[in-house]
Amino acid sequence: MILASNSQIRRTMLEQAGVGFNVRSPDFDEAAVKAGPDLGGEQLARRLAESKAASIAADDCDWVIGSDSTVTVNGQRYSKPRDREEAATHLRAFSGQIMELASAVALANRGRIDWSYAETARLKVRPLSEEFIQSYLNQEWPEVGYCVGVFRMEGRGVALFERVEGSHFTILGMPLLPLLGALRERGIIAS
Amino acid sequence: MILASNSQIRRTMLEQAGVGFNVRSPDFDEAAVKAGPDLGGEQLARRLAESKAASIAADDCDWVIGSDSTVTVNGQRYSKPRDREEAATHLRAFSGQIMELASAVALANRGRIDWSYAETARLKVRPLSEEFIQSYLNQEWPEVGYCVGVFRMEGRGVALFERVEGSHFTILGMPLLPLLGALRERGIIAS
Repeated sequence: MILASNSQIRRTMLEQAGVGFNVRSPDFDEAAVKAGPDLGGEQLARRLAESKAASIAADDCDWVIGSDSTVTVNGQRYSKPRDREEAATHLRAFSGQIMELASAVALANRGRIDWSYAETARLKVRPLSEEFIQSYLNQEWPEVGYCVGVFRMEGRGVALFERVEGSHFTILGMPLLPLLGALRERGIIAS
Repeated sequence: MILASNSQIRRTMLEQAGVGFNVRSPDFDEAAVKAGPDLGGEQLARRLAESKAASIAADDCDWVIGSDSTVTVNGQRYSKPRDREEAATHLRAFSGQIMELASAVALANRGRIDWSYAETARLKVRPLSEEFIQSYLNQEWPEVGYCVGVFRMEGRGVALFERVEGSHFTILGMPLLPLLGALRERGIIAS
């Protein structure tokens, strides 16, 4: 099995589940998918996950997992912050708001999508003081530069939220339990 | 601040949140609390968490955190398995059922409970084959001997579940976000 992802947390999730896999970088035009028809956050995450999975399967007959996430706050989509200043700007925009974090995962075989799944978690960000934002970034930058939501739930990101609704794995970036179910149904991992 | 717990995962949760604390072993008669009036899983978890927190505060004026969890399946309460055979017996009983995992956390000051909170997560266990149970315990025993639900969600425990409803931190054994909120309200950690 191949995980078409450069994300460390997605590798860690699969490893903890005891699934064997190799990693390959997905090879597709992400900007083209994002510039396509205007999709909701969950639909876009699914399109990106499917594109990643299909991009590797083209030259391999193994199963390929693709996965992606989007963050939407007040109807606006957020990308990974380019620098610490933009990370602070994003955190100021998130303060006191509901963050919709959609994650998707797809399975491809010989370039064809066989299965995909997406779901959205809702995270209530508490009011963040400027002092907190700077102290948080002193500790978490540059690591959170790889995260669309500017947080790592497995790190100090927990300090951002009042309340969290939805699957933890979706929040980490990949709906793990539905993926494991799909792998078991296909006999790829043991029941 | 003092964490009245011998649990590694509770320490890890507080550390990841950036909270400074020392660890002390709680000192109270757990069997007496469990032998008391018949409480629901969530109420019992709260009573245990409060007893732990109050047991340390008696000789200290620092804030003390206590936390505990209970597991209930089909109305029956489960304790930590005593040996690998009992762990297998528990897993057979959990197979295909809903596990109610209640976790509680309490804050005490000078032996008085100032705040406590409890909540229940519901985890749907998938049908587990005997072969899976043995392979799982080959990998996870004896570590899961410290876990009332015979799983570590941060390890291969994810392979047990079809679906999970509720907070991840509650599943790990301590409702972290409500605790951080209570610590901020009291000025113990920064907002």
